[in-house]
Amino acid sequence: MSEPRWDVLMTGATLATFASDAPFGLVRDGALAIRDGCIAWVGARSELPESPGALAREVIDLDGRLVTPALIDCHTHLVFGGNRAHEFDLRLNGASYAQIAQAGGGIVSTVAATRAADEEQLLAAATARAKALLADGVTTLEIKSGYGLTLDDERKMLRVARRVGATLGVTVRTTFLGLHALPPEYRDRRDAYVDAVCDAWLPALASEGLVDAVDAFCEGIGFTPAETQRLFERARALGLPVKLHAEQLSDQGGAALVARYGGLSADHLEYLDATGVAAMAAAGTVAVLLPGAFYALRETRLPPIDALRAAGVPMAVATDCNPGTSPLLSLRLAVGMACTLFRLTPEEALRGVTVHAARALGLSDRGTLAVGQRADLAVWNVSDPAELCYWIGGALLRQSYVAGRALH
Amino acid sequence: MSEPRWDVLMTGATLATFASDAPFGLVRDGALAIRDGCIAWVGARSELPESPGALAREVIDLDGRLVTPALIDCHTHLVFGGNRAHEFDLRLNGASYAQIAQAGGGIVSTVAATRAADEEQLLAAATARAKALLADGVTTLEIKSGYGLTLDDERKMLRVARRVGATLGVTVRTTFLGLHALPPEYRDRRDAYVDAVCDAWLPALASEGLVDAVDAFCEGIGFTPAETQRLFERARALGLPVKLHAEQLSDQGGAALVARYGGLSADHLEYLDATGVAAMAAAGTVAVLLPGAFYALRETRLPPIDALRAAGVPMAVATDCNPGTSPLLSLRLAVGMACTLFRLTPEEALRGVTVHAARALGLSDRGTLAVGQRADLAVWNVSDPAELCYWIGGALLRQSYVAGRALH
Ligand SMILES: [Zn+2]
Ligand SMILES: [Zn+2]
Repeated sequence: MSEPRWDVLMTGATLATFASDAPFGLVRDGALAIRDGCIAWVGARSELPESPGALAREVIDLDGRLVTPALIDCHTHLVFGGNRAHEFDLRLNGASYAQIAQAGGGIVSTVAATRAADEEQLLAAATARAKALLADGVTTLEIKSGYGLTLDDERKMLRVARRVGATLGVTVRTTFLGLHALPPEYRDRRDAYVDAVCDAWLPALASEGLVDAVDAFCEGIGFTPAETQRLFERARALGLPVKLHAEQLSDQGGAALVARYGGLSADHLEYLDATGVAAMAAAGTVAVLLPGAFYALRETRLPPIDALRAAGVPMAVATDCNPGTSPLLSLRLAVGMACTLFRLTPEEALRGVTVHAARALGLSDRGTLAVGQRADLAVWNVSDPAELCYWIGGALLRQSYVAGRALH
Repeated sequence: MSEPRWDVLMTGATLATFASDAPFGLVRDGALAIRDGCIAWVGARSELPESPGALAREVIDLDGRLVTPALIDCHTHLVFGGNRAHEFDLRLNGASYAQIAQAGGGIVSTVAATRAADEEQLLAAATARAKALLADGVTTLEIKSGYGLTLDDERKMLRVARRVGATLGVTVRTTFLGLHALPPEYRDRRDAYVDAVCDAWLPALASEGLVDAVDAFCEGIGFTPAETQRLFERARALGLPVKLHAEQLSDQGGAALVARYGGLSADHLEYLDATGVAAMAAAGTVAVLLPGAFYALRETRLPPIDALRAAGVPMAVATDCNPGTSPLLSLRLAVGMACTLFRLTPEEALRGVTVHAARALGLSDRGTLAVGQRADLAVWNVSDPAELCYWIGGALLRQSYVAGRALH
């Protein structure tokens, strides 16, 4: 008797493959085989070449349950010290932003708490938050620096980000976000800060292997397009991909700028204009939508979804998990908000946390159910992909898999 | 040696008692003792009469963790057949309400699916949803009928509701909502339907012990105030408390009506006017806010929170979990929405799922941490009560207790 050709064969699955143009790339009564951590076969069960038992060492009958690619959260600020619940409370009790700033609130408080925390403390807090994301089927996530704002504290954040991945057995992609905010000690030396970030910190951290991509907060209250461009030039010289917090609160032309550098993604985009849409479409830059921040900030201006759709710009959806503007611990909630608040269809929202989110991270080995892809899978206790968007909260995940192995 | 006086003593707790006027009724470094399923002592640890070990058989050091009364979801439609994810998908793909109705959507589809399901099927689905609520620290919930709309199917729903409580070891309060929608077979016999509900079904179900309270959907697209009043008269004759879906889509004077009957609560209230607020205040009727439906329906008109607050009307918050307008499986998300969308303070929102929610169900033995109350508790992995409102999603519960026993 010959060895079965596959390690695992899932049968009776409703497969949302996102690998064809059919809605959700759906295959009913499907089968999916795993070998050596990758998807070895995917299709209708009726097309299997032999009986399941002869084909694989282990056969799992899913009884109609939905299988999707494991979810990908392509924009988070998951590593930080403290939280801002007290500030949230103060604001709802009528405190003004000035009063909150006086009480030590705002991003400065997160920077101070992040600097004060050691690696173990940051790791424990970030791991707990990452576990919340994993409970929704996430097995790949991006984590940005940007609350350290010194070389050592940015390094600490990025090291913690890597350790979150190692601790939980999932993929973490790190992003250097030194140009997140001007730290207090540089208040009157803005240029010196940008110099330090571009000329010293980024090259140092990149040489240590801590930087998978480079990001900035390009905004009236953040960094200018010229400063951002300076950073992008350095990233290009180092061979690192770029992305950008762009057009969240005003139109700075950030999306066009990041597109010009072949950027992976432009993120937020509430104030994106037609020029930006066209530039993104031409460059293949992904639009990362962050409805959690839109919701928490009670914004009313929507990203130009119709224009992005019409131009064929791939749209991703992410939590933006951060302590100030989006304390969101569930990617499925972000998906639901993308539908309810941004009017994405369930299919668009789910492509946004699978195939398009992979693209936003520069990953081509995951995000669809197709032969040769890593077997990063989510098996759900529902049978209709739209249910992942429809139910608000709840524990719908049955089991996720990383490279073919059940994640615990 | 004498027996320790208490079964369990929790120390090192941050107690949000909701039993005083202090913010959250907060006691830091608190202690709470349980005996015979009730709270036997609560206060600052420093005021304990002896050393903890001498006082209780089991001492649990909570290391600063937050303890609240277990949460109470006082308005749900948790028992139903099917779901409406497909309809959600159709709508986001541009289908009109007429097209959805033609495709068999809307409440009619839930009525059909609920009628078609047997008790075991309904129980399995509702238990799974209830478990999602329990994961947020809920140990008391209300469940309404209203998708059966025949005597047998309403009975089936209420029996399933009772069984959900028995299965999970939590308290379920049942509400008869026969006047939820006019079933298709009564389309041209509206009065006959109201007659059947008031004169036959309610007395029958009440006599079977299946009805803890009586509710109706008083709305232009529901039942008139006169029809509602007829139901309330019958409820009064049977000695059953009333509550009402009131002023959700228009001002029908429903809140004043239910107040006139000494109602437990008026629920939704987006269109509540000053007369209704005054009537509720005078009667002590609780305002049950349902931000999940507001969110899912993308409503823009807010309930008159300031007026309710000024009049001293107790405000509760609930999921309204239902397949059409609020497929919300988390009471903590409802609490967060009450803050973010309705601008309740975290303290108000949390009183809304503890002490005021208990009152909305006519329960005086729970909802605060005070001596003599049932030891229905939630222990959280956070130390600041505002965090329960601030984090969107995530698994913050460490352990809940029902009458002093850990719930698994
Ligand atoms: Zn961000
Ligand atoms: Zn309702």
